Amino acid sequence: MAVRAAVAGASGYAGGELLRLLLAHPEVEIGALTGNSNAGQRLGALQPHLLPLAGRVLQETTAEVLAGHDVVFLALPHGQSAAVAEQLGPDVLVIDMGADFRLTDASAWEKFYGSPHAGTWPYGLPELPRARAALEGAKRVAVPGCYPTAVSLALFPAYAAGLAEPEAVIVAASGTSGAGKAPKPHLLGSEVMGSMSPYGVGGGHRHTPEITQNLSAAAGEPVSVSFTPTLAPMPRGILATCSASAKDGVTGESLRAVYEKACADEPFLHLLPEGQWPATASVYGSNAVQVQVAYDEAAGRIIVISAIDNLTKGTAGGAVQSMNLALGLDETTGLTTIGVAP
Amino acid sequence: MAVRAAVAGASGYAGGELLRLLLAHPEVEIGALTGNSNAGQRLGALQPHLLPLAGRVLQETTAEVLAGHDVVFLALPHGQSAAVAEQLGPDVLVIDMGADFRLTDASAWEKFYGSPHAGTWPYGLPELPRARAALEGAKRVAVPGCYPTAVSLALFPAYAAGLAEPEAVIVAASGTSGAGKAPKPHLLGSEVMGSMSPYGVGGGHRHTPEITQNLSAAAGEPVSVSFTPTLAPMPRGILATCSASAKDGVTGESLRAVYEKACADEPFLHLLPEGQWPATASVYGSNAVQVQVAYDEAAGRIIVISAIDNLTKGTAGGAVQSMNLALGLDETTGLTTIGVAP
Amino acid sequence: MAVRAAVAGASGYAGGELLRLLLAHPEVEIGALTGNSNAGQRLGALQPHLLPLAGRVLQETTAEVLAGHDVVFLALPHGQSAAVAEQLGPDVLVIDMGADFRLTDASAWEKFYGSPHAGTWPYGLPELPRARAALEGAKRVAVPGCYPTAVSLALFPAYAAGLAEPEAVIVAASGTSGAGKAPKPHLLGSEVMGSMSPYGVGGGHRHTPEITQNLSAAAGEPVSVSFTPTLAPMPRGILATCSASAKDGVTGESLRAVYEKACADEPFLHLLPEGQWPATASVYGSNAVQVQVAYDEAAGRIIVISAIDNLTKGTAGGAVQSMNLALGLDETTGLTTIGVAP
Amino acid sequence: MAVRAAVAGASGYAGGELLRLLLAHPEVEIGALTGNSNAGQRLGALQPHLLPLAGRVLQETTAEVLAGHDVVFLALPHGQSAAVAEQLGPDVLVIDMGADFRLTDASAWEKFYGSPHAGTWPYGLPELPRARAALEGAKRVAVPGCYPTAVSLALFPAYAAGLAEPEAVIVAASGTSGAGKAPKPHLLGSEVMGSMSPYGVGGGHRHTPEITQNLSAAAGEPVSVSFTPTLAPMPRGILATCSASAKDGVTGESLRAVYEKACADEPFLHLLPEGQWPATASVYGSNAVQVQVAYDEAAGRIIVISAIDNLTKGTAGGAVQSMNLALGLDETTGLTTIGVAP
Repeated sequence: MAVRAAVAGASGYAGGELLRLLLAHPEVEIGALTGNSNAGQRLGALQPHLLPLAGRVLQETTAEVLAGHDVVFLALPHGQSAAVAEQLGPDVLVIDMGADFRLTDASAWEKFYGSPHAGTWPYGLPELPRARAALEGAKRVAVPGCYPTAVSLALFPAYAAGLAEPEAVIVAASGTSGAGKAPKPHLLGSEVMGSMSPYGVGGGHRHTPEITQNLSAAAGEPVSVSFTPTLAPMPRGILATCSASAKDGVTGESLRAVYEKACADEPFLHLLPEGQWPATASVYGSNAVQVQVAYDEAAGRIIVISAIDNLTKGTAGGAVQSMNLALGLDETTGLTTIGVAP
Repeated sequence: MAVRAAVAGASGYAGGELLRLLLAHPEVEIGALTGNSNAGQRLGALQPHLLPLAGRVLQETTAEVLAGHDVVFLALPHGQSAAVAEQLGPDVLVIDMGADFRLTDASAWEKFYGSPHAGTWPYGLPELPRARAALEGAKRVAVPGCYPTAVSLALFPAYAAGLAEPEAVIVAASGTSGAGKAPKPHLLGSEVMGSMSPYGVGGGHRHTPEITQNLSAAAGEPVSVSFTPTLAPMPRGILATCSASAKDGVTGESLRAVYEKACADEPFLHLLPEGQWPATASVYGSNAVQVQVAYDEAAGRIIVISAIDNLTKGTAGGAVQSMNLALGLDETTGLTTIGVAP
Repeated sequence: MAVRAAVAGASGYAGGELLRLLLAHPEVEIGALTGNSNAGQRLGALQPHLLPLAGRVLQETTAEVLAGHDVVFLALPHGQSAAVAEQLGPDVLVIDMGADFRLTDASAWEKFYGSPHAGTWPYGLPELPRARAALEGAKRVAVPGCYPTAVSLALFPAYAAGLAEPEAVIVAASGTSGAGKAPKPHLLGSEVMGSMSPYGVGGGHRHTPEITQNLSAAAGEPVSVSFTPTLAPMPRGILATCSASAKDGVTGESLRAVYEKACADEPFLHLLPEGQWPATASVYGSNAVQVQVAYDEAAGRIIVISAIDNLTKGTAGGAVQSMNLALGLDETTGLTTIGVAP
Repeated sequence: MAVRAAVAGASGYAGGELLRLLLAHPEVEIGALTGNSNAGQRLGALQPHLLPLAGRVLQETTAEVLAGHDVVFLALPHGQSAAVAEQLGPDVLVIDMGADFRLTDASAWEKFYGSPHAGTWPYGLPELPRARAALEGAKRVAVPGCYPTAVSLALFPAYAAGLAEPEAVIVAASGTSGAGKAPKPHLLGSEVMGSMSPYGVGGGHRHTPEITQNLSAAAGEPVSVSFTPTLAPMPRGILATCSASAKDGVTGESLRAVYEKACADEPFLHLLPEGQWPATASVYGSNAVQVQVAYDEAAGRIIVISAIDNLTKGTAGGAVQSMNLALGLDETTGLTTIGVAP
């Protein structure tokens, strides 16, 4: 018996990627699709790559339209999810791909988002310590941000194993789809092709408290995070270059052993062989996380680099993975570790 | 019972794309993988996006290695397929992704390739008139070239319906993967990013006689072809802009009706709604062909534009589609019409 | 004594490129800069590559602001230039980078632009037959469109020499800056990177009548034009692939001789050596036009391919070249034939 | 009286960019051009963007060919410059764009390059403390590496002013031209478009000791450097994201004041206004360095981000700037701070 899924916010990049994955999911039947400013339009005009859904028409995002589904995915601007979720009732699985329910610290939320904190839902990054159990059978899931996914999966093993000092320095490059589909001058193709540029420098990016929350939980102590995101001239992908001072006694071998263990049983975490480094092209369209580690002895630092597809593992793939766990399906159903390359 | 498939030439772009598709094919088990200059290397080092096969090691391309499979795919430089196929025996399905067996006219082969003609195999473009039957149960298949796929599928309906004069003018833009993985200076990222450039101008490209063959067969008379390929700054995709003078009496309505009929029952041919034009991004990684037509009344010309992924429908997807037909499987097994976008 | 130049519309791509060139022009002093929706903003925020002008503030586009200059460049949306020009008086050199005064045929203007025809000014493509004289000393100049520049310079020699039948087929690929800086969803980097797509197919593009006008004038008879523009994943550049049936008696040698003669004394027209083809990267930021010709004997067609930078020779460089002629300066002052590559 | 300049290694990217700049330099006359593997070829075939030099033919790199010039630029693989320089005699200005003479520490050279140290020449980064005087009238100049240029100019003010702890963490993204023109599979357009990937991770990149040398000199104490370079999908540009723990008492204001002072009199160093961040597109083809700083109070770190064109300020522009100083010309002659954008 199929799982009936609705998608609120089907016209954007997160919604489109989710539909791409749900179309390939053997247990899911795609139900209502909504999109407020685009309600009434054919999906074929908005997401021309989703040919099997080309004739579907977007509806308004209302409780009536979203009723009667087993799962409702929310790909809405932040601040809108709580009201929708409330109307859906406690028995429907609601998976929020926005930021509203990711943070546990209400004051961090208020500082970075400037609005009252809506609450905290089980966090959809099952690879983190103790995270998977909370997702099994859950009725509410907060899908992590794309940068926090890439960074937390890169650094949690080092912190959980006590190898790294609690001061992480992270520089991450993201493809432009991470900035969404709303047209803004600095996101024009003419502007981004051939250009690398930073934004949210100095701790201002909203993903900073989420990264801090995850790394601190793994370390069991507060971790200070310096996070600089950059915009890269590619549609998809995040390359996260993460480092921290090594604690005394760390060696290249002990570092690698910790990562081998952390990745061993994880279906989507792949520690590359020594000498091979992640590339975002290799995970294009896939739910895989490619990871590599190095111990820079001269600088005394642990370097961990991860590559993900920001729309897949970083958003919609993470959402499907969480849905699978919440519904008791095999965690990997409908997901792949194979990228589309070159 | 699984179909055992071997891939000769697994280290290049065609071979890599084929493996990506075969990994997702429910009836196929991947057997021997060969690659002469790369024999002995791990596939993970050569095709880092194919994580499930990362530990596989490439073998030499010999009859012994390729023996014992139900299907052998050849992704070899032209001129090498005949000898390999002969050694495999008549009962093994051999699918040649190279050029050797595409042309029916030996003199055209010799003119464009400068070597003796190896023969002609059933042509793996089932959408062409009378092509599908020849593929059902076949033991040998010649997979079309990427440009001929895009161009022939764009223009055959107009020619088969007698709407177009027998002089076609085609300008096509291809992503760089069409030029292969052998490193050459003009294919460096530094050279191709930000640049459009033509090549093989004036009828010199080897895909010209193949296009001529297909269009002439559809028209039932010799079609003269002016074909200019261009290299575009993207990894994948072909956009083919094809035109011909309209025969007397053609109207926009009659033209559209012909294309609607031609695409109606084809699982991979999609005529877009009026006003929407193909984009290569929409078919990224998919086996779909997006098509749109226009009748330019002032110029008296029929314009047909198609978009394909040169590695999928243009190479490896076409190969899998032909394999399905040859083995009696549903033609669409393991293939998708959904692109990875944006 | 410096030429004082004002730029109306300094915040867009045409205005920015013009300022880049004027900054390097030894005879020009940059005066007023205007931009309606951006009036009051620092140019440094809008054109961050123009460091020497970073502190300049945009003003409103009014007659008062534009008064007192020797040259006024108009980079305005079409339909606005006539009113501004009128206010400036007949003694000021006004160079319109928009479309308003390019067409001689009022009915063609009305058909393609849907508004009354403003008139016809000397056409700023001095390489065309008889065009240069009309620009010397002119007080009004209409700068050609980017596509008409690339196409007309490719085909006029063949038409002027009577080598080509009056039916031209043109497919041109343009970088995204040709579509301007106003943010629209289909111009987002996420959409255009990795994608080729056509637009204005079937004769609908507004540059079609301008191309027709130029080729017909060169041929001395009406030339029918089939023009298909495509959007390419690069910020700048136009590659125009142009062809026409050859008239009887044309040979490769006679064709080349005509182009050699046409380019011989033109400072910006470069016929490449045989075997070398234009690439847009080679003319990045330059005013050069790279041209190559081929005679496709089998198809009986003349193929001419040109590459320009759409913002330089295709817009702002053409404007400066015309200004030089109008002011009696050396035509090449402040312009270069050297591209920025790779 | 013109300065006669020869370029050894004119076929690569560094040599091509140098020629682009020298063609625009009012005091330079371009003499011999050499290129060993390409000797005998027309420059037009190798550097098609340099139209004024298209007919020049490359010669062998010999002392005879290079004799009789005022300046000889060496764009050779490392290890070859010493022998050539020796033959040229002490009175010729020799500017080495390679690595041979950059390092002062012979053991660092031997560790990173595996060959005997050739010596140390005046270092062509005049913006560094005490560097300009050593270049005035010099007969030998070592042009800095591209990454060391971007990183050192970002961080030297903080170190020279004693604001930063001596442990720098640097992640830099470079366009592909930094990897040179020799064709290698991982540099193919198909591989790099759409992909970010790191290399030389963990301290292994050869620019690490050069960065360490510069920052330590500025700080007056040894600075430990963690440097991770990444390859970005663009032809040109470096974006360097640099950070270090702030020393006690640092504030955002004190940090900014230090940078304002450091950039105030430097013609190529531009501290952007607050709120505006560097982008590599803005310095495309220019000799400018765009810099911005932030003090991340929560993390206690100084963040400095710089953008340069790796081929211009990072290589050939730096070489011309040094030449100007060595010859007693105005330091900015022939160089621009205006980028080619978009």
